[in-house]
Amino acid sequence: MTERNIHVQPASGLAVEDQDIEVVERKGIGHPDSICDGIAETVSRALAQTYIDRFGTVLHYNTDETQLVAGTAAPAYGGGEVLEPIYILVVGRATKKFDGERIPAESIALRAARDYLDKQFPHLDLGSDVIVDVQFGEGSGDLQTVFGEEATVPMANDTSYGVGHAPLTETEQIVRNTEQKLTGEYAESNPVVGQDVKVMGKREGDHIDVTVAVAMVDEHVPDLETYKSAVSDVQAFVTDLAEEYTDRDVTVHVNTADDYDAESIYLTTTGTSAEQGDDGSVGRGNRANGLITPNRPMSMEATSGKNPVNHIGKIYNLLSTEIAQSVASEVDGIRQVQMRLLSQIGSPIDEPHVADATVITEDGVAVGDVEADIQATIDDELADVTDITRQVIDGNLSTF
Amino acid sequence: MTERNIHVQPASGLAVEDQDIEVVERKGIGHPDSICDGIAETVSRALAQTYIDRFGTVLHYNTDETQLVAGTAAPAYGGGEVLEPIYILVVGRATKKFDGERIPAESIALRAARDYLDKQFPHLDLGSDVIVDVQFGEGSGDLQTVFGEEATVPMANDTSYGVGHAPLTETEQIVRNTEQKLTGEYAESNPVVGQDVKVMGKREGDHIDVTVAVAMVDEHVPDLETYKSAVSDVQAFVTDLAEEYTDRDVTVHVNTADDYDAESIYLTTTGTSAEQGDDGSVGRGNRANGLITPNRPMSMEATSGKNPVNHIGKIYNLLSTEIAQSVASEVDGIRQVQMRLLSQIGSPIDEPHVADATVITEDGVAVGDVEADIQATIDDELADVTDITRQVIDGNLSTF
Amino acid sequence: MTERNIHVQPASGLAVEDQDIEVVERKGIGHPDSICDGIAETVSRALAQTYIDRFGTVLHYNTDETQLVAGTAAPAYGGGEVLEPIYILVVGRATKKFDGERIPAESIALRAARDYLDKQFPHLDLGSDVIVDVQFGEGSGDLQTVFGEEATVPMANDTSYGVGHAPLTETEQIVRNTEQKLTGEYAESNPVVGQDVKVMGKREGDHIDVTVAVAMVDEHVPDLETYKSAVSDVQAFVTDLAEEYTDRDVTVHVNTADDYDAESIYLTTTGTSAEQGDDGSVGRGNRANGLITPNRPMSMEATSGKNPVNHIGKIYNLLSTEIAQSVASEVDGIRQVQMRLLSQIGSPIDEPHVADATVITEDGVAVGDVEADIQATIDDELADVTDITRQVIDGNLSTF
Amino acid sequence: MTERNIHVQPASGLAVEDQDIEVVERKGIGHPDSICDGIAETVSRALAQTYIDRFGTVLHYNTDETQLVAGTAAPAYGGGEVLEPIYILVVGRATKKFDGERIPAESIALRAARDYLDKQFPHLDLGSDVIVDVQFGEGSGDLQTVFGEEATVPMANDTSYGVGHAPLTETEQIVRNTEQKLTGEYAESNPVVGQDVKVMGKREGDHIDVTVAVAMVDEHVPDLETYKSAVSDVQAFVTDLAEEYTDRDVTVHVNTADDYDAESIYLTTTGTSAEQGDDGSVGRGNRANGLITPNRPMSMEATSGKNPVNHIGKIYNLLSTEIAQSVASEVDGIRQVQMRLLSQIGSPIDEPHVADATVITEDGVAVGDVEADIQATIDDELADVTDITRQVIDGNLSTF
Repeated sequence: MTERNIHVQPASGLAVEDQDIEVVERKGIGHPDSICDGIAETVSRALAQTYIDRFGTVLHYNTDETQLVAGTAAPAYGGGEVLEPIYILVVGRATKKFDGERIPAESIALRAARDYLDKQFPHLDLGSDVIVDVQFGEGSGDLQTVFGEEATVPMANDTSYGVGHAPLTETEQIVRNTEQKLTGEYAESNPVVGQDVKVMGKREGDHIDVTVAVAMVDEHVPDLETYKSAVSDVQAFVTDLAEEYTDRDVTVHVNTADDYDAESIYLTTTGTSAEQGDDGSVGRGNRANGLITPNRPMSMEATSGKNPVNHIGKIYNLLSTEIAQSVASEVDGIRQVQMRLLSQIGSPIDEPHVADATVITEDGVAVGDVEADIQATIDDELADVTDITRQVIDGNLSTF
Repeated sequence: MTERNIHVQPASGLAVEDQDIEVVERKGIGHPDSICDGIAETVSRALAQTYIDRFGTVLHYNTDETQLVAGTAAPAYGGGEVLEPIYILVVGRATKKFDGERIPAESIALRAARDYLDKQFPHLDLGSDVIVDVQFGEGSGDLQTVFGEEATVPMANDTSYGVGHAPLTETEQIVRNTEQKLTGEYAESNPVVGQDVKVMGKREGDHIDVTVAVAMVDEHVPDLETYKSAVSDVQAFVTDLAEEYTDRDVTVHVNTADDYDAESIYLTTTGTSAEQGDDGSVGRGNRANGLITPNRPMSMEATSGKNPVNHIGKIYNLLSTEIAQSVASEVDGIRQVQMRLLSQIGSPIDEPHVADATVITEDGVAVGDVEADIQATIDDELADVTDITRQVIDGNLSTF
Repeated sequence: MTERNIHVQPASGLAVEDQDIEVVERKGIGHPDSICDGIAETVSRALAQTYIDRFGTVLHYNTDETQLVAGTAAPAYGGGEVLEPIYILVVGRATKKFDGERIPAESIALRAARDYLDKQFPHLDLGSDVIVDVQFGEGSGDLQTVFGEEATVPMANDTSYGVGHAPLTETEQIVRNTEQKLTGEYAESNPVVGQDVKVMGKREGDHIDVTVAVAMVDEHVPDLETYKSAVSDVQAFVTDLAEEYTDRDVTVHVNTADDYDAESIYLTTTGTSAEQGDDGSVGRGNRANGLITPNRPMSMEATSGKNPVNHIGKIYNLLSTEIAQSVASEVDGIRQVQMRLLSQIGSPIDEPHVADATVITEDGVAVGDVEADIQATIDDELADVTDITRQVIDGNLSTF
Repeated sequence: MTERNIHVQPASGLAVEDQDIEVVERKGIGHPDSICDGIAETVSRALAQTYIDRFGTVLHYNTDETQLVAGTAAPAYGGGEVLEPIYILVVGRATKKFDGERIPAESIALRAARDYLDKQFPHLDLGSDVIVDVQFGEGSGDLQTVFGEEATVPMANDTSYGVGHAPLTETEQIVRNTEQKLTGEYAESNPVVGQDVKVMGKREGDHIDVTVAVAMVDEHVPDLETYKSAVSDVQAFVTDLAEEYTDRDVTVHVNTADDYDAESIYLTTTGTSAEQGDDGSVGRGNRANGLITPNRPMSMEATSGKNPVNHIGKIYNLLSTEIAQSVASEVDGIRQVQMRLLSQIGSPIDEPHVADATVITEDGVAVGDVEADIQATIDDELADVTDITRQVIDGNLSTF
């Protein structure tokens, strides 16, 4: 058995899947808030990697604040133009001097942010549509000896907590996959679909409404008819997709705010509403697991951009989700597991003040039957906490 | 009875007050995130009032994005100095031209932001410690005829939801009051206490830990001894205060990260950590009810700065809380009520898609006994939805 | 006699006073370029004084770049308003750390700039009409031991030159005094006159045209008639003033671009055209002697904001003017003297590569008669070169 | 004969070529001030061309303010890095809406500025070394019907003047060609030479000192020896070059501030001192003819970035130089001609208040002999004034 303070208890209420009303939301990678999340996390990874390359360890930094000020655009059938560029201010702290050597933190951040935009947003012209600015304060040069030969588990520097759950409900799966596939494979073969896709799933009893807002790219929309086709194509695609995840009734709504008579439609030049009026910032959209789930406990922590070595809020949110997934997949008879990790200031982060699993088991399985398995799974994951850091730096764990 | 879609149902789980572990947090008004919330909301109110004064109605605007880039400071016993000013970028959209007349939206925002800082932060020198910048895009001039003679209820322009609960648990009351009284009456007579007070309450069974981080103001701290006294004074004050709200065991921790031997203490020149390394932005801290409550459903909506006439997310979060409070105070036998309002695009905002109350009653009271009363209370509040708008503009409703 | 390389020679051409056409210009203190000059120089003085107070010597800095981005305003009879604030970016380098102590260079600059605006521009509301931003890079901490006990003459660190002349021609005197008195004593008793006064003097033979553009302050202009009166009052005042300096014919033109029929007049809310469309920056307006004199040799050096201890361009421009004035006032028979100082890299600044006086004497006086006196005067002034630095820091020498 | 007010007169003094001391300076295209000039002018051309393409005419704009805030760099043998990016703020006014159509003035400016940097500065990495920001106010939409079918000569909107001279003295030719060839053909085959080349020529009697400061590019400098070779190569190249323009004694000094013992040398990563500590702005460096010539009358006008259709200061400075060149090349017996054009508010710009040529003829030629030819040449050039506008837009006339 473990020395760690691990609690396992049955949930007192209904599984989310069994609740009457369930609401789930995901902001796509091209939503202004997600753009900021993506930049913040990319900049974070670039800095962490630079520190490792140069000093064998990650130094103090925090880049979890990026502000996007929307531009102005005049989309038009066949291709419009951006009138006023989007302005993006990357804010943070970083160690700029260490061991007598200076580190080009701002230049790294600038390049990382621009490269990210270039790669993720094919309809955004980096030369004219966006201004990327950087303001970095200086962090302290305190060494974090987590990586390298003598890797050790860092101490928690704050009282914080993380939450995570598994498995995803049907509605959650639909919402997440809708966005990821639309902005992924679907957009690749249908460039009319921009990266700003917002999905809201609402389940009432056994009926699921999936509301999708898709920024269409004007270059690929010569006229209203083409737009209408694009909308029904998305509608059909999402309807098919949803059936993979549920047997419930699903109704898919696409760009419901359109008014065809007034030719008021969701047309963009760059594929994101950041081009016209929608500002954004880090940590206001998706939680660390990629979803907004008001039926579940959530953390307010802005995970993206935080230092993955010692920021307990980031690590515990990602780890809670990992643990929940491990429990759900490795322990038999689990219908729902909700993890919570609470830090203990001054203790190693692999020894949380409390690790708390609230479990709903399948019919015929008592929590007591699986408690030991669950505890063991949690214990293993905690023992391997620094793996989260490595995965984050390598870009294998999404934070939004 | 009502035409509105109002549901009342018993909660399936335990009341939060009865759960094993409860975590509650509040970021004080001087926390960098709260500074941004406060500015965003103040700017919003100033704009709304200007539109009403000039045109008899609130025009389109949205000022829910403010980014704070921390400064650098050198606090010192007896009074240090700010080395690099805090930079605050107020971002938003506003109607700048209406009915042939131009509206000084940026100038109004600048003044409102500076006046707010001046009033709330007595230790911040506006002439040298802070740079306030403004970037406002242009919103559309669509008239919102909500105020004035022919006030009507606006239509919901988005699918959104709001959540609220009542009454507060003991831990929630302690956390909220600790911050409000420390930065209020206590700071007034003890100027050593700055405005950046962060409170975390953690209840395990019947033991409550209240962890308070207080930015002490160096001008009033001649030496380490004085600092230590200030810390124990706060500790005593909060301990007394907590007893007003609970009979449970309470332990109060103040500035636990201090290291007296290394003279590493929480000393500031301006009373906020924004002076040194802590950036902030809108909507990342307290929810609309002033708390962060991971045991409860929460909305990700950044309430502060949003237009209170037509932003459904803002209105429904504030209204849910108001409704929950009314139900808790006006209906007998309620232990806990959790409200959720879901909007219906294109319908008047007083007719939500669903208004959903999840209730835990006192022993001996069946939900069925009070269902009609609860519905009637909810119905009344919904009928009076525009009152929320007015209260927000008048500054009678806090948003963070 | 002296060791310094001092040349005195007769001018080969006509005295400016005798040339057919003479053009002279002065941009008033409220012109956007002059606002930048004023801020840059004020910030420079504040920094220099801080360094002296804290370290007994002036450290490395340079604040000769300030960019003003014009605002937008809606002036109106009786008082209009600023719609979009003026944005001022103070740019520079400063030593931020010295001898283990940190220097709040940005905070000092911010305060100095705001105080300057507050004092000089009574119609500018600092709370809403202007955003002052600061971006300071770090200069090297090389000690400049010019002040304090062991004051020494610094070495020239660049090949540069300065020019100056004396006495002023009649046209020059009229132009300079017109601006200074209008924005000084006259504006004090006639608040309708703003600080943005631009004066151009053009002499053709014996006729002088003085063209004055005065930004009138709308608060003091209830109607067009009042405006017209204000214009004729200025016209009368300048006409009287000009007579003090010349017996030539003078015609004074005020706000000639006005079109009364179209009610297109030079009305401002703040007293400066920076409120509407006129950007500005350092060093684009008046030369170090306060004038733009295309009939004379001029230096392109932006004098304002430069470090007065070691910036040879600043020192030599100011010193050349001082020397010319001394020669003109102390040596008899001088009609015009044009000074030029050329630095020698690596030599003490009191030993210029060449100090070159081009002289026109009065009838009956040969240059040879006064050569020795002129040389002696120049020699004395050069010996006292560090006095320029002191006068600049004390604010006794204007740089624009 | 002409109706225009054209004066021709003999100069009263010595030709500059005959004066004892002559000082001439040129800041290369990579000098921070010139970078700003280049961007401002490029942005101006891009805007003008856009207006012509879309509306057949140039609309109101002015982009003569660009502020460069230097970065920080760590150059090193073999290749260093930029630590903090250079920040460039492009400031101006432009017509953003005309005839119901919106014009993407900011996006055009952003692209033009970035393209210019990309093309001119091969060692500057646009992805990480520089932040380009744009702040454009709105100009009025007043139509300027200068181009298109019904081209007419615009009216002068200000009292302004321009100056120009021809031919260049030997020193002027050497200074200008040194910079242009070093940053041109020489840099192409010797990439060690950066774009920031500053040349000062000083002639005393018959001796010319040419002082050149060349920013060497670290990527091509593996060690001090290579640096020394690069310096002597430049020295030899300039020495040879100078002989093409003069028979006088010439001494060439390169990077005189270097201190080899301390290994303090002029090494850069990007080829410009803007990477480390040298800020810049428009109009502070070279005059419209590409030189700074304190022996000559100069205009303070910042020519770069100004609207070439109606900005009289820009047009008259360029035109004066063109006229002087025509007179010098087309009229026999001219040793030196100095042109000055003075505008007349409200008159067509081809009818200046006065066009004033001050002439020094060769021995045996009286000014009276060539007066008529000179007047005719001036008259022709004035009649063709709009050609200046066209040449500027086409990029055939340099402004700095």
